[in-house]
Amino acid sequence: MKKRYVIGMDFGTLSVRCVIADALTGKTVAESVSEYEHGVMDDTFLDGSPLKSKIALQHPLDYINSMKSTVTECLSASSLNAEDIAGVGVDFTGSTVLPVDKDGIPLCFDGRFSNEPHAYVKLWKSHSAEAEANAVTALAEKRGEPWLIGYGGKISSEWMIPKILETLNDAPHVYEATAEFTEAGDLITRLLTGSSARTTSFAGFKGIWNDETGYPPNGFFCELDMRMDGIVGTKISQNVRPVGEIAGYVDERGASLSGLAVGTPVCLSILDAHAAMPALGISGERELMLILGTSGCFIINDSAAKNIPGICGKVNDAIFKGYYTYEAGQSCLGDGFDWFVKNLVPEKYTVAARESSVSIHEYLRSKAQKLAIGQSGLLVLDWFNGNRSVLADYDLSGMILGLKLSTKPEEIYRAIIEASAFSSRMIIDNFSDNGIEIGTIYASGGIALKDEMMMQILADVTRREIHVSSATQAGALGSAIFASVVAGIYANIKDAVKVMSVPSARIYHPIPENSQAYDKLYAEYSLLHDYFGRGGNDVMKRI
Amino acid sequence: MKKRYVIGMDFGTLSVRCVIADALTGKTVAESVSEYEHGVMDDTFLDGSPLKSKIALQHPLDYINSMKSTVTECLSASSLNAEDIAGVGVDFTGSTVLPVDKDGIPLCFDGRFSNEPHAYVKLWKSHSAEAEANAVTALAEKRGEPWLIGYGGKISSEWMIPKILETLNDAPHVYEATAEFTEAGDLITRLLTGSSARTTSFAGFKGIWNDETGYPPNGFFCELDMRMDGIVGTKISQNVRPVGEIAGYVDERGASLSGLAVGTPVCLSILDAHAAMPALGISGERELMLILGTSGCFIINDSAAKNIPGICGKVNDAIFKGYYTYEAGQSCLGDGFDWFVKNLVPEKYTVAARESSVSIHEYLRSKAQKLAIGQSGLLVLDWFNGNRSVLADYDLSGMILGLKLSTKPEEIYRAIIEASAFSSRMIIDNFSDNGIEIGTIYASGGIALKDEMMMQILADVTRREIHVSSATQAGALGSAIFASVVAGIYANIKDAVKVMSVPSARIYHPIPENSQAYDKLYAEYSLLHDYFGRGGNDVMKRI
Repeated sequence: MKKRYVIGMDFGTLSVRCVIADALTGKTVAESVSEYEHGVMDDTFLDGSPLKSKIALQHPLDYINSMKSTVTECLSASSLNAEDIAGVGVDFTGSTVLPVDKDGIPLCFDGRFSNEPHAYVKLWKSHSAEAEANAVTALAEKRGEPWLIGYGGKISSEWMIPKILETLNDAPHVYEATAEFTEAGDLITRLLTGSSARTTSFAGFKGIWNDETGYPPNGFFCELDMRMDGIVGTKISQNVRPVGEIAGYVDERGASLSGLAVGTPVCLSILDAHAAMPALGISGERELMLILGTSGCFIINDSAAKNIPGICGKVNDAIFKGYYTYEAGQSCLGDGFDWFVKNLVPEKYTVAARESSVSIHEYLRSKAQKLAIGQSGLLVLDWFNGNRSVLADYDLSGMILGLKLSTKPEEIYRAIIEASAFSSRMIIDNFSDNGIEIGTIYASGGIALKDEMMMQILADVTRREIHVSSATQAGALGSAIFASVVAGIYANIKDAVKVMSVPSARIYHPIPENSQAYDKLYAEYSLLHDYFGRGGNDVMKRI
Repeated sequence: MKKRYVIGMDFGTLSVRCVIADALTGKTVAESVSEYEHGVMDDTFLDGSPLKSKIALQHPLDYINSMKSTVTECLSASSLNAEDIAGVGVDFTGSTVLPVDKDGIPLCFDGRFSNEPHAYVKLWKSHSAEAEANAVTALAEKRGEPWLIGYGGKISSEWMIPKILETLNDAPHVYEATAEFTEAGDLITRLLTGSSARTTSFAGFKGIWNDETGYPPNGFFCELDMRMDGIVGTKISQNVRPVGEIAGYVDERGASLSGLAVGTPVCLSILDAHAAMPALGISGERELMLILGTSGCFIINDSAAKNIPGICGKVNDAIFKGYYTYEAGQSCLGDGFDWFVKNLVPEKYTVAARESSVSIHEYLRSKAQKLAIGQSGLLVLDWFNGNRSVLADYDLSGMILGLKLSTKPEEIYRAIIEASAFSSRMIIDNFSDNGIEIGTIYASGGIALKDEMMMQILADVTRREIHVSSATQAGALGSAIFASVVAGIYANIKDAVKVMSVPSARIYHPIPENSQAYDKLYAEYSLLHDYFGRGGNDVMKRI
């Protein structure tokens, strides 16, 4: 009998989540979570010594231990043997970077480097390479590098090249001893299979690589730092392969590290956010995925290469083979709501929320929901953390307009949420105005699941249906779906998605009269957006 | 021996404050406060029945009882006899309006009207005549009435004509039975002396009267409401006389109502805010008085009639004879700070303030004071209650720009205060740009006395010295100073002020480097001020 079970492993910020799915029915037969022993080290190092500001490290041993633990638990819970598993898929946070030796072994496992923070993993949210990121951006601007605009005009401190440059600056001996800087996602498939490869997902979105011109030219790296001369092809692998392809088969070492059976096919790894797509039911173009959490991520695929201004990523074969993946983003979403709630909500509200045993967000929503559209007379620019799309300008800041002595906190709260919906519409319209057709919208993430008011406003403002998935482990399930293809259970991802994706739990339909009311506010939002964001008045940069 | 003691009576919102001053030394020899028995009736009427929304009534009997009580107390405290008093000065809130019969007796004392709210006093802050005020403004605009611009383009619901029109609309039988609508300030001098007169102060600033063309023409009133035909000269007195002149001498009735001696000269009444001027040391032009409380009031005198755009009042002989008084205003000042504190300061701050036994304002100031100028990157438009000067536009609203996820409440608090200083500078510059010379600035009011941070910022932003008076009863003392002139102790107000005014308790000097830093922010403020306030983007009116 042909094997029908596949494993998906979703390496998140604090834990690995693992699912075993029945590829023939899509049913999840087991799931398990294993937290990393050392979690995130952003304050003190392993030995208790203080770490540099804004850095966030992880211990690669945690990934291995948690992987083995979840696989073992899932097998046990489902009463399956490792040999019953037809294929394995892996997704990981990114850019989560570490130095490895020539055999792919983390440098920090070497006693010479075990006390060296830069020999460990720099987690995606490590922001200590801010100066290096700015240097990369500035040099790219100066040289007129054509790839810069494809990343929204700014290279993030979260990405691979600034993190490597930081290691070179802070710990040149670590840089020197490194055979390769690898994404943790690529490390896992290498440890499992023994085959070394980067995937388009990490290289394209976080590594300044594209399928036409590859990495920036060596001259760029030399001008950045002479010691980086020749880095491409040595410490940065050029063996970039499309997501969805097979990485290799579990070998002896991989089996012992994971509890999987030797010979099990392993899919190349993928960014965790992107892995959710097939789980939500997306297998190709016209389907937009919104990931609505602390920030907002807007991802869509299109079979053609198009020039879309103001996006922050465009990578070929990055999720589905034969498609370009386009990514745009909001620099803050839930982060903005949280900032307001933590800083600008009065005691009488927080006390009332406590007394009613509801969260302050729920309390504010209960009041904000009663407001008619436009009733408060408020308009917000949601640039509290800059603007990622469509302006790609991190020097912009937030604005609240229309404040009166009668203005109440819940009115501002709602206006901030409405602003997020307006900037979402701007991103969506920017896609469609530039030739990317948008059909169904799927939303996932904490906001999508928890904030019904925001989701209805989003449907009203964008005049589009929004599908919210019921998948609780969308990343792990998505990885399992990819695995079902490399396992040969399905001929292609489309067929796999048809069976294995999770139906939408709820669909938000736009309410025409609301949409009409919001059109007026959106016109005002757009006017202010362009005035402050496109040079009408650069006050936000001057003050 | 010549009499040397004078009495000043300051009729405020909740009480009369009375002082007896020694006119030859300026020393206050007694002071007393008497609260009005009925206070402000803005919720329920005398009989407990509910009042219409936004109305604020007073009982005129309270004025008489409190007057007698304070005069008696002051005489007793100073061991003086009523006969020792050389003169009496009266100031009052305005426009605080009531209907009286042909003998000047309040209509509500007549049993036929004692249950009729409109027969009582409408306090200055009665805002129920909003619709009537808008009707007056709209008609003036339609007819192109030349006086409208002199009042900043908008007639307030606080003023006399809207309040009379409201009585006509709501209680036509009261309107019908009224011999005259009078300011409560004018009522007091009439009750004391038996002589009926209006003063330039109330008529000019609150009654749409000026010394060149008088009241609006009868055609205006007829178009407003045909029943107002002929109102000027009947129910509205045309006997308007300059502030500082004698109203008359206390008669038998006045003596019995007040405890003053028959024959004591009484000065014509004046708006309470304006009465403070001589007490602070102002007796003519070049000296600007700022009254900084819930809102901001900017008053200056000039011997010439000048056209100043964006002010809200220009009246000849209104404070000092031979001078035009120019008034400009900020629609909210302390009200804006209070709004922020009540609505947008988090529990951890209010709890910390309580635990330290300081007010939340003090707590926020202690944090805000530590911020460098421009550090927060915030800029505010302080139009939370519209803009009175220099835009005279109540449809404008407040704005906060520069918000980031790191923005703290104390940063916004400081930015609101800075915005108030910027709009103060705009008003002051507007005076001087239009030919009114400004020398010393005197500040009074709650903010001037309590908020050292705001006062220093104001000095820095305006690049001017700000004198803050130590006078605790500036209104009552100012009235006493006016009284010393009608009593013949001084030949003119200048001489009286030289002796009787209170020296400044504190002078705030601008700090040059602060002023320089604020110049940059003020330039940004001005740019946004004009963009949103002068038609660049009328979004505040559209949303």
